[in-house]
Amino acid sequence: MNCNVPTDIVFSFTGFQQRGGRTDDHADGWGIAFFEGRGCRLYVDSASAADSPVAQLVRSYPIRSLNVIAHIRKATRGPVALENTHPFMRELWGRYWIFAHNGTLDRFEARSQGRFRPVGSTDSEAAFCDLLNALWQRFGDTEPSGADLGGAVREWANRMAALGSFNFLLSNGAQLFSHCATRLSYVVRQAPFTRVRLADADIDVDFSAVTTPADRVAVIATVPLTTNEEWTSIEPGQLLVFEDGEPRVVG
Amino acid sequence: MNCNVPTDIVFSFTGFQQRGGRTDDHADGWGIAFFEGRGCRLYVDSASAADSPVAQLVRSYPIRSLNVIAHIRKATRGPVALENTHPFMRELWGRYWIFAHNGTLDRFEARSQGRFRPVGSTDSEAAFCDLLNALWQRFGDTEPSGADLGGAVREWANRMAALGSFNFLLSNGAQLFSHCATRLSYVVRQAPFTRVRLADADIDVDFSAVTTPADRVAVIATVPLTTNEEWTSIEPGQLLVFEDGEPRVVG
Repeated sequence: MNCNVPTDIVFSFTGFQQRGGRTDDHADGWGIAFFEGRGCRLYVDSASAADSPVAQLVRSYPIRSLNVIAHIRKATRGPVALENTHPFMRELWGRYWIFAHNGTLDRFEARSQGRFRPVGSTDSEAAFCDLLNALWQRFGDTEPSGADLGGAVREWANRMAALGSFNFLLSNGAQLFSHCATRLSYVVRQAPFTRVRLADADIDVDFSAVTTPADRVAVIATVPLTTNEEWTSIEPGQLLVFEDGEPRVVG
Repeated sequence: MNCNVPTDIVFSFTGFQQRGGRTDDHADGWGIAFFEGRGCRLYVDSASAADSPVAQLVRSYPIRSLNVIAHIRKATRGPVALENTHPFMRELWGRYWIFAHNGTLDRFEARSQGRFRPVGSTDSEAAFCDLLNALWQRFGDTEPSGADLGGAVREWANRMAALGSFNFLLSNGAQLFSHCATRLSYVVRQAPFTRVRLADADIDVDFSAVTTPADRVAVIATVPLTTNEEWTSIEPGQLLVFEDGEPRVVG
């Protein structure tokens, strides 16, 4: 989720949580990261989202955030363990960076050297470290502009996409990048807000009652989370960057 | 807490939580980090521990860990905000490192350059980054032995202790370092286990009923958490390293 005003994700998370072991089989751990100012709350759990006490907390404690990344895992590389649970977090240029990946990078050879190194054994965390090492090598001590950063992420995504299936979400708290390899779609909610219905739970919400006319909220998901909204499919190979709830194609 | 078998911290945390706004005035946010294998659960909240829904979760969800670091904040440097909430986490040599500080480093000049940089505005996070930068500069790509690491932390603690009040806890998931500047004490629980009573809540527990004879658990705190155990004061200037529930003086 990426927004122009701090927004809670309770509604979307309620549907998403069901896919972690109930309406879908991604039951090998789950996690969620909320940026809050420069800070970040990161909750990871190796239990399935559907059964996790931490997921219950997230549903009952409305945390307001401009950028949220959540992930439910179906283990392909690396055993079910906390250190292999997405999203992953690192610090670069005095900002936290959050990364989650869906797919398998069959032909990616992870390195265990360099400034950023994986703690666990997933191809996903190794790929995230590879990105941060590449950014650090390219820009050194100076944080790049949004445009330069976008260009670098675009180049890196092209390189990695050649090595396997690489749907990913990446945020530094200001922008949220979404790369589609096989399947990813989004919806932008803005005025006039309507009543919206979850696909995975018998729940709806009237967003016009809980928003102001200036609010804009983008939600990105592998499979649409609601049944009565127009979701846009991101094209395979496309990298979008979301800022203030607005998507823009990169590169 | 540092243990030789994964142990839950619910009992100690129950007393500790009260100090975050109820029996003590450290009400400017709180946090706790649990190592679980190589992974780490980090919960930070800018609300007071006494009132935090996340603290309620920690009390009701027994997470078993070999190394736990918890902190309640009384803001001295940096406003109350999530990014200023201890403990702080970074990755170095493919391990997570966790750090919490009690005191103020009046004469420490934080730098915003280098590999590790603070995200928030506390002297504490800046000091943590300073340590990791120093370790990286000294040992480079190769993780040092426990003895070499201890020596480096000892040297760094001496340098920082000259700049203010520097009680800290530091863990890489294998060792837990405790440096006392003004006030820090510990207890080691091992067989024969006894019935123990919290100082801050009307709660006791019979550890003989929930342990095996081989268990060893060290708990370190600014002020003893229990009333009927022998806590050992760490001497000002002393650095201890705990491993498998056993303290050892460093340097």
